[in-house]
Amino acid sequence: MVLRLRLYSALYPSWGPICLFPRSFASCSGNPASCCTMPQLGLLHGRAWAVLFGQLRRPPGAVCIRAVHSHSQVAEAALATQLKPHQEKSNFIIKTPKGTRDLSPEQMVVREKILDMVVSCFKRHGAKGLDTPAFELKEMLTEKYGEDSGLVYDLKDQGGELLSLRYDLTVPFARYLAMNKVKKMKRYHVGKVWRRESPTIAQGRYREFCQCDFDIAGQFDPMIPDAECLKIMCEILSGLQLGDFLIKMSWKDVRHEMVAKKGLAAEVADRIWDYVQCHGGVSLVQQMFQDPRLSQNKQALEGLGDLKLLFEYLTLFGIAEKISFDLSLARGLDYYTGVIYEAVLLQTPAHAEEEPRNVGSVAAGGRYDGLVGMFDPKGHNVPCVGLSIGVERIFSIVEQRMKTFGEKIRTTETQVFVATPQKNFLQERLKLIAELWDAGIKAELMYKNNPKLLTQLHYCENTGIPLVVIIGEQELKEGVIKLRSVANREEVAITRENLVAEIQKRLSES
Amino acid sequence: MVLRLRLYSALYPSWGPICLFPRSFASCSGNPASCCTMPQLGLLHGRAWAVLFGQLRRPPGAVCIRAVHSHSQVAEAALATQLKPHQEKSNFIIKTPKGTRDLSPEQMVVREKILDMVVSCFKRHGAKGLDTPAFELKEMLTEKYGEDSGLVYDLKDQGGELLSLRYDLTVPFARYLAMNKVKKMKRYHVGKVWRRESPTIAQGRYREFCQCDFDIAGQFDPMIPDAECLKIMCEILSGLQLGDFLIKMSWKDVRHEMVAKKGLAAEVADRIWDYVQCHGGVSLVQQMFQDPRLSQNKQALEGLGDLKLLFEYLTLFGIAEKISFDLSLARGLDYYTGVIYEAVLLQTPAHAEEEPRNVGSVAAGGRYDGLVGMFDPKGHNVPCVGLSIGVERIFSIVEQRMKTFGEKIRTTETQVFVATPQKNFLQERLKLIAELWDAGIKAELMYKNNPKLLTQLHYCENTGIPLVVIIGEQELKEGVIKLRSVANREEVAITRENLVAEIQKRLSES
Repeated sequence: MVLRLRLYSALYPSWGPICLFPRSFASCSGNPASCCTMPQLGLLHGRAWAVLFGQLRRPPGAVCIRAVHSHSQVAEAALATQLKPHQEKSNFIIKTPKGTRDLSPEQMVVREKILDMVVSCFKRHGAKGLDTPAFELKEMLTEKYGEDSGLVYDLKDQGGELLSLRYDLTVPFARYLAMNKVKKMKRYHVGKVWRRESPTIAQGRYREFCQCDFDIAGQFDPMIPDAECLKIMCEILSGLQLGDFLIKMSWKDVRHEMVAKKGLAAEVADRIWDYVQCHGGVSLVQQMFQDPRLSQNKQALEGLGDLKLLFEYLTLFGIAEKISFDLSLARGLDYYTGVIYEAVLLQTPAHAEEEPRNVGSVAAGGRYDGLVGMFDPKGHNVPCVGLSIGVERIFSIVEQRMKTFGEKIRTTETQVFVATPQKNFLQERLKLIAELWDAGIKAELMYKNNPKLLTQLHYCENTGIPLVVIIGEQELKEGVIKLRSVANREEVAITRENLVAEIQKRLSES
Repeated sequence: MVLRLRLYSALYPSWGPICLFPRSFASCSGNPASCCTMPQLGLLHGRAWAVLFGQLRRPPGAVCIRAVHSHSQVAEAALATQLKPHQEKSNFIIKTPKGTRDLSPEQMVVREKILDMVVSCFKRHGAKGLDTPAFELKEMLTEKYGEDSGLVYDLKDQGGELLSLRYDLTVPFARYLAMNKVKKMKRYHVGKVWRRESPTIAQGRYREFCQCDFDIAGQFDPMIPDAECLKIMCEILSGLQLGDFLIKMSWKDVRHEMVAKKGLAAEVADRIWDYVQCHGGVSLVQQMFQDPRLSQNKQALEGLGDLKLLFEYLTLFGIAEKISFDLSLARGLDYYTGVIYEAVLLQTPAHAEEEPRNVGSVAAGGRYDGLVGMFDPKGHNVPCVGLSIGVERIFSIVEQRMKTFGEKIRTTETQVFVATPQKNFLQERLKLIAELWDAGIKAELMYKNNPKLLTQLHYCENTGIPLVVIIGEQELKEGVIKLRSVANREEVAITRENLVAEIQKRLSES
């Protein structure tokens, strides 16, 4: 058992500090209010010191108050021998849960840029926003994920409903559609999902990560929404400038669609595989139709119909060359019902000095025509097709690239710093900065009564603030403010009335 | 026990649909892959139909395969009698967990506007972004919330660490500071938090809700960061145009600061209460200092020092009149160490036709100088002050106001709709819309081979799309596109090369 000693100030009037000796560190953070009942604390009123020790778990009756004020040294010494309070402090590890992480301000800037770009693409394609709770009723997620069901995080049964953290954004979307009887919807959703990935099978994967999903629900003419999803994948991956990429379609699914759904003979399907092994989307389909064994086979033509249609649309979108077929690709999740696709970055590094990276899939999607029906009491289905962008992987690529090139990231957007060269100018600085804030200008100052001018200017250089306004005795006397450009250190005096307009002019020019 | 019948397509090549009769609906969604092992499914290879029934919970050994192809009718009939598959379907309730909700596209638009406004204010004050995981190690949250600790959501022990969903954004921030030994930071964080609020004690409160926090950590000259936090509260509440508001400071805390920390006699503190009962910030403090019983009392002057300083700064920020003292206000959470404050909306409705609303607190904050030290192994403290905006309440006010005034909300940002008056123009529409998307224009079309023109135009009117581009036989022959303004129904013909430029010009003018 780990035992610790902590000193805390009491939170109650007329009290001095209190020493706490919890027997179990985890059970007590040292806050007296949560370790003792108020009547017990009342016994110590007016005393300067107290030693509390014992079993600090609730109920609070278990707390012992042994020594007050003059007896504290004795008690402390006795306990120190017995409990070794100072030693094992390094055992107290502050960390985030396994597989999770904080995002630092630098990481947040990169993350936000990526998400902005992704969301603006989704909006460009007419998608509406939607949000769902982080957890669902456990039964909503049951039997949706096949082999992966064991990776769902369940909440503890604390009375009431049994809940699970969402595993993806697709199942909650289908639940939303069924619950609200929505038959048609194009929505995007950016949010965190949670998966209890085992670190042995998936090194470096996070257990909490962000997904960006775009989905089209509804009964439409074939392959039009499917083609748009692939177009969106291409727009996002091009827009993020991640280097060359390819979208791989699962051949197993394509074959199944043709054979099981369109009734194509298995031999004919396998003959088609001879073609699709060669990379190259539409030209490939054209080649196939020039093969008399296929083009003169009515069954083959019908079986190939959807594929032909899809590649026609992809050609019109100018992205057919980005699509290829893959024999090894298979649906990871149970709910997919059609062809699935995955976007992979190609391994040629953009710059010679960069290390080649193996990042695997950065986006995936497919059709799931049966999922909504699993929620609907009458089994009514709403056909759906969608895609999910794996922003964590994209994020780590962009982050690594920025590190390689030593790019400096600004973590604030502050435009103006309010500085003074003199002492006792806090009041003037506060008045001035309030004027800037009220005019919508992003401004900071130092929370010091008398900061040094050099410290203030250094702060601007270090954090990338472009402008400094300086107010001192001289400026106050002359009714002006000095406006300084951090980049070239040029200073001009401006009347107070014109200051905001001049700053806005400078900011709009830069 | 609820029993159901469902029909699903098999996911494997050469299979036809499979009928599943799970004994317990919750245990099986009807997906054969999760109900049978692959070898068992293999037995059915090449057959068109299968009936599976029995106890479908894993282990999969419990699954029975009884009838294939020709025997299916017999098996189905027998089971139908025995299991009553069709009847109790209405018992299956699709819902979100208690205390949570989905946000519809309309609600998302309102939410995003509010969050944008809040975040832009935080950035105006130089805050950096930060993100922390949705859950923390359970011990990180232990004993931080006093009476409210029972409201923390714990995750189920599925092996490994014991985890809890975060209860607020403040404790994770303090954990981040201690973990990374950060001594100074101004950060904002927008994120969801989870509290197992009991509906009997808190009607209408959500168990999942969004918080917007701004905090200043670090050792600074007194009351400057505190005043900025209050300024931010005022800027946000003014900016959101929620009507008149007031920030109430807990008198209990102010009194404690003066008596316990500055050594003011309790009688003198209570004399000050005579003053602060009257609403009115800085003038109040001035009045106090004119009272000879206080101004000639050295102890009183010292005790009042921080309060005087704070109101000086609030006056410079132009917000002193927004602050008043409240005797009933008390810290809800254990970790606050100084004066706490809460913003409340005043009940006068902005418009006569609106109902007066009782919305309570919409923002709160205070000082928590001891929290970081609770995480630090050596107990090193980092003084902190911050605020939290209760966006859920603000959101419900704005939503209600929009309903009252019948404001229509656009849920997409689509700028242009690509339409055709003729049949067989899908290919031309797809080519055209790809051009628009690639030029960064937000565009939509109908996922139909041959939609009616009227349907297309109605869609634009209903969803607020301002522009329509129309391509038909005539336009194609003349090499032009018709550009139609939805508002005034005016149409002009534009050459294809000039289309994007003309659209961008129109959009920038509107």
